[in-house]
Amino acid sequence: MRVQRPKGTVDILPDESGSWEKVEQILRDFFKQANYREIRTPSFENYNVFSRSSGETSDVVEKEMYDFNDKGGRHIALRPEGTAGVVRAYVEDKLYAPEVAKPLNVYYIESTFRYERPQAGRQREFHQIGIESFGSANPLADVETIVLAHDLLAKLGVKKYELHINTLGNAQVRQDYHDALVNYFMPVRDQLSDDSKRRLEKNPLRILDSKDEQDKKFLPNAPKIVDYLDEESKGNFDQILMMLDQLDIKYVIDNDLVRGLDYYTGVIFEFMVEDKSIWESASTILGGGRYDNLVEEFDGPKTPAVGFGIGEERLMLVLHKQNPALFEDQGIDFFITNIGEKAAIKAVEIARLLRSQGLKVQYDVDQKKLKAQFKKADRAEAKYVITLGAKEMAAGILNVKRLADAKTFKLELTDLENMTAVMKKLKE
Amino acid sequence: MRVQRPKGTVDILPDESGSWEKVEQILRDFFKQANYREIRTPSFENYNVFSRSSGETSDVVEKEMYDFNDKGGRHIALRPEGTAGVVRAYVEDKLYAPEVAKPLNVYYIESTFRYERPQAGRQREFHQIGIESFGSANPLADVETIVLAHDLLAKLGVKKYELHINTLGNAQVRQDYHDALVNYFMPVRDQLSDDSKRRLEKNPLRILDSKDEQDKKFLPNAPKIVDYLDEESKGNFDQILMMLDQLDIKYVIDNDLVRGLDYYTGVIFEFMVEDKSIWESASTILGGGRYDNLVEEFDGPKTPAVGFGIGEERLMLVLHKQNPALFEDQGIDFFITNIGEKAAIKAVEIARLLRSQGLKVQYDVDQKKLKAQFKKADRAEAKYVITLGAKEMAAGILNVKRLADAKTFKLELTDLENMTAVMKKLKE
Repeated sequence: MRVQRPKGTVDILPDESGSWEKVEQILRDFFKQANYREIRTPSFENYNVFSRSSGETSDVVEKEMYDFNDKGGRHIALRPEGTAGVVRAYVEDKLYAPEVAKPLNVYYIESTFRYERPQAGRQREFHQIGIESFGSANPLADVETIVLAHDLLAKLGVKKYELHINTLGNAQVRQDYHDALVNYFMPVRDQLSDDSKRRLEKNPLRILDSKDEQDKKFLPNAPKIVDYLDEESKGNFDQILMMLDQLDIKYVIDNDLVRGLDYYTGVIFEFMVEDKSIWESASTILGGGRYDNLVEEFDGPKTPAVGFGIGEERLMLVLHKQNPALFEDQGIDFFITNIGEKAAIKAVEIARLLRSQGLKVQYDVDQKKLKAQFKKADRAEAKYVITLGAKEMAAGILNVKRLADAKTFKLELTDLENMTAVMKKLKE
Repeated sequence: MRVQRPKGTVDILPDESGSWEKVEQILRDFFKQANYREIRTPSFENYNVFSRSSGETSDVVEKEMYDFNDKGGRHIALRPEGTAGVVRAYVEDKLYAPEVAKPLNVYYIESTFRYERPQAGRQREFHQIGIESFGSANPLADVETIVLAHDLLAKLGVKKYELHINTLGNAQVRQDYHDALVNYFMPVRDQLSDDSKRRLEKNPLRILDSKDEQDKKFLPNAPKIVDYLDEESKGNFDQILMMLDQLDIKYVIDNDLVRGLDYYTGVIFEFMVEDKSIWESASTILGGGRYDNLVEEFDGPKTPAVGFGIGEERLMLVLHKQNPALFEDQGIDFFITNIGEKAAIKAVEIARLLRSQGLKVQYDVDQKKLKAQFKKADRAEAKYVITLGAKEMAAGILNVKRLADAKTFKLELTDLENMTAVMKKLKE
């Protein structure tokens, strides 16, 4: 019996990996341009890193955690999302120290995991990309995060997206709103789903996020957080919205937006794509917000923070439809065909020389017949084929064929020292 | 109590992540230039993927596997190395099919895991980089792999390394040599370490790899594989060495070289660095070889294959000593300081405009006083500081200061549309 990959996992094969790499390169360059630097935390953490941060009633912790006991009896979990590990590192590695410049801006691109019944688009190992900014409570920090998200999607070529934005207010607001929700849902408790019955006790806010039909009918009339905002929270939210207006960033105020994790405070936002060729209804591809208490919950000093996360699989799905150019393979520059053993060594030497000048070059390690080598050149989408036989070696002359139009060129071996000049000639 | 990262794991923090990224970018570009494309397999596999491939007596399987039972009772292991998952994918995803061009050349850069007592330089999560080439039995394929390893280390700036090379011959050779080792070690069985007693039964070849003092005294006089090579294996090895000579790649024939995994057949090699400023004795930083039976062991069709792997942590350690330029942070291009709220929005707009032209730009989301903003610019190693106040806004003029020599420039706001021209001026 053949060994198979574990349930819920996928292989990203050579024909598609190039586009993943291309997208990640765009992301890295983009983050670096805004002076966000990479952080890499372990693939697994002690279980309580996630139960503490995501909230015990979150779906992530309640149902989806990929956790196990290691050989030393430790309760370990493969990370379900990116923020908790970064916050753990921020505290443990003392990145709050005054000698570390603030805000501390970081990004990550990493594997994330969840253990649940695999279904379409839900994998046990998937990928998440995100940024976090620690140290500023200024509304301009929220705006920077949102603007970066907006500009990033634009740069990637994502279309038909809408920014949804909401605020969870300050601690008092969240407490008042919590009480209002309890008052509203308690009389209909018996008609709620089992999940929501439990949420009602531990975190009624999460009921608003329910996809359960039983719960849904109670949602439209539920209290709205906007009615509980105090002056300070409202002022903060208005200031953020005003700056977005000034920067000409379009948004929709969405009072139902709560996000799936417990740690958010203040502004929260999601970028939703509505494209019928991909999904039936609008779907979130990027989400984030402010989380001013999380560093403290990890026993670090009080530190305001804001960030966002992107699901890479979803992003790739959208880009595949909306920016197909990213998925085109560009092929190699040269394929060197050769006849005979001596010419084989020469082919290796030429390949090394051309690669050292930045070109993509292949030769046939399998040393098939010339016709088969030309077929390989075609499959590698080579732009040019160099032919190398005893005659060419003796004369010190190379035959180069441009595959697009079969035009041929003659080069001297010494020309290869300066491929910038050669490439100009070959493009004529 | 603070939550800590799991035993044996590390965080790669922003100050060091840049050099990891730089090295990985060099590797990716290098692999792509040789038409090796990326493959990404899951972080975990069914346990038997690794026990089957690495060999049941290998240290990896016997002592180091990071395995556990998942919630569905499956025996899962976090991958201890890169090759097994790639071979599993090669078979399961039918990459042996004729419509996939051969050889199929792939590379990977990934997290790998082992569970053992953490010690200096031994982490539970570490990183491995490798290439694999499937489909060619030609000695030129072995040579290509070795040449790529050689050129890659040179490109990265690794110094003081030596290529050690050996061959394990064909199946008959390995059987004869196996018998010779059993005959040699059996009389001294009681004096061997416990590990080697077990190896003697299952895989005596591995005794040659022993670091145990008890075993070491028997190693110098042990049979050498070179004395058991038949004509075919010797011819193949000689041909590879001859090609390396022609390509001017220096090597040392090392009859004691066996590699730590069971799956190798034919030629095997290691690049060892001897640099007293890093390690007391010569240490392997890259190793690989031919493994012609592994695809078949995964129930795929008989497929010759060859590849190599690099431990990224070790590589970084070497590069840190030998090529410190890779570890220098380049800082950002512009820091935009501003005074007042209106100027803040303008700072964001200018940052977006400059970033869209490829520049690294930051402004102060925290809106501290001007002096503090200049300090931030210093810490971000900004090359230029733009100052933006009400006066500048009204006049449409920007003051730019070059931090290296405090030279100042005046720019019009409209100049920013063409930063190529501006940068020329600012470098005068």
